[in-house]
Amino acid sequence: MSTDFAHEFRVRYGECDPQGIVFNANYVAYFDHAMTELWREAFGSYAVMEERGIDMVVAELSVEFRGSARFDELVTLSAAVERLGNTAMTTRLQLRRDGELLVEGHLRHVIVDRESWEKTAIPDWLREGLEPYLAADTS
Amino acid sequence: MSTDFAHEFRVRYGECDPQGIVFNANYVAYFDHAMTELWREAFGSYAVMEERGIDMVVAELSVEFRGSARFDELVTLSAAVERLGNTAMTTRLQLRRDGELLVEGHLRHVIVDRESWEKTAIPDWLREGLEPYLAADTS
Amino acid sequence: MSTDFAHEFRVRYGECDPQGIVFNANYVAYFDHAMTELWREAFGSYAVMEERGIDMVVAELSVEFRGSARFDELVTLSAAVERLGNTAMTTRLQLRRDGELLVEGHLRHVIVDRESWEKTAIPDWLREGLEPYLAADTS
Amino acid sequence: MSTDFAHEFRVRYGECDPQGIVFNANYVAYFDHAMTELWREAFGSYAVMEERGIDMVVAELSVEFRGSARFDELVTLSAAVERLGNTAMTTRLQLRRDGELLVEGHLRHVIVDRESWEKTAIPDWLREGLEPYLAADTS
Repeated sequence: MSTDFAHEFRVRYGECDPQGIVFNANYVAYFDHAMTELWREAFGSYAVMEERGIDMVVAELSVEFRGSARFDELVTLSAAVERLGNTAMTTRLQLRRDGELLVEGHLRHVIVDRESWEKTAIPDWLREGLEPYLAADTS
Repeated sequence: MSTDFAHEFRVRYGECDPQGIVFNANYVAYFDHAMTELWREAFGSYAVMEERGIDMVVAELSVEFRGSARFDELVTLSAAVERLGNTAMTTRLQLRRDGELLVEGHLRHVIVDRESWEKTAIPDWLREGLEPYLAADTS
Repeated sequence: MSTDFAHEFRVRYGECDPQGIVFNANYVAYFDHAMTELWREAFGSYAVMEERGIDMVVAELSVEFRGSARFDELVTLSAAVERLGNTAMTTRLQLRRDGELLVEGHLRHVIVDRESWEKTAIPDWLREGLEPYLAADTS
Repeated sequence: MSTDFAHEFRVRYGECDPQGIVFNANYVAYFDHAMTELWREAFGSYAVMEERGIDMVVAELSVEFRGSARFDELVTLSAAVERLGNTAMTTRLQLRRDGELLVEGHLRHVIVDRESWEKTAIPDWLREGLEPYLAADTS
């Protein structure tokens, strides 16, 4: 059984643009922030990677906009790992307000060695820690 | 014959993250900025749309990272319209440093009526103004 | 008796610069965010001002840096109203990590009428709602 | 005789807030950006400091708002060194649109040694390079 990770937060004023909605680029910043929070829940903190000699870099991302969040709204950003490959993983992120899906995105991260900054295999401890967050439709 | 539009600028310090490279979300902000500059070249300014009763909203975006730009580097962001549909258009954006492709992205914009904020057909003046910027491999 | 208002949050990765610390400008964004949270506690939400026909604009700000906050640190931003004048108010903001004062700032806001955007007297409901947050050394 | 340094740029969409004007914190980011450009003009690049073993950190800043810049406006940010002390310097920054002063700020930087991150005396080459940018009313 899998559970989505969810992080709740409020939209800040300076994150919104003259249309009164969150500026496009800031949703990507939200995604990054959600990954940090997912790591906190799964591993204690994001720093665990650095301590164990790896890091991850975003290789690809995509965002689909169905609606917009506005200043001071309380939104929920959920994350589910859709694919845990050999050296890369793909995470689906969904931003909702009162259950309504506003924005959906995907981040593809590549795991790298902190010495060489070369791709490296996803270590077992990372794979196991992320297992509870695998998307329900992933097998 | 088609020509890519290109906008040159320098990476600002506050746009870079602790890895010393441009923070992911900021490339999306750069894309937005390049669209404004493309509009300036093609139509005089972005405000022309508002004056003529339309606007555009991003429906989808994607980014592929091959490299990273760093603080104070001079980079070039080129834009080419890959698809001019009935109510939507797709633009390809490529960030280069000294000719080397670092980041490539796509933005799909939908044209909306400024009164109803409903989808509306791309007007002729917009279509014609963008024709010089159609990607070479689009026909 | 007066109590400081305090808002706790974590530093996000994209808010930090290549020195690994929060980029200067982002402390000012934090101050703005704390004002929104102070308004939520005092009045239910920031939107109460708009509903009652007023708004406020920053006329002056200052920041003193004694230390720096870093990625993922849990920090507390406290706010106390130092001066409630006729049409303007000054708020002191203090960012602390584990009790240590890192950054102190002041914001001077002017109250404006939402129709004319001219200065207007601070209404009684605003003055009364802010009284619990007057700085202890203000009388 | 002294000359102000001036850097011209356009306000980007994502830098503006729902009031349609540049978000307060972003003026501070502009100041930082202007310092980089001043360094480029005076010393070739900001990196010269790192190469020579020093850096500078902002100890204090202040901003006075008289007006606001809006999306796509062409603005000029001028910088003049008001004080070159033993280990610190103060720079005045003025943002203008068509000659009209919109925002004025001050940054007090402290020079630090890159090894110890302790305060260090402003080296002669830095002092001499900044002399042309001393404010006219400083002597």
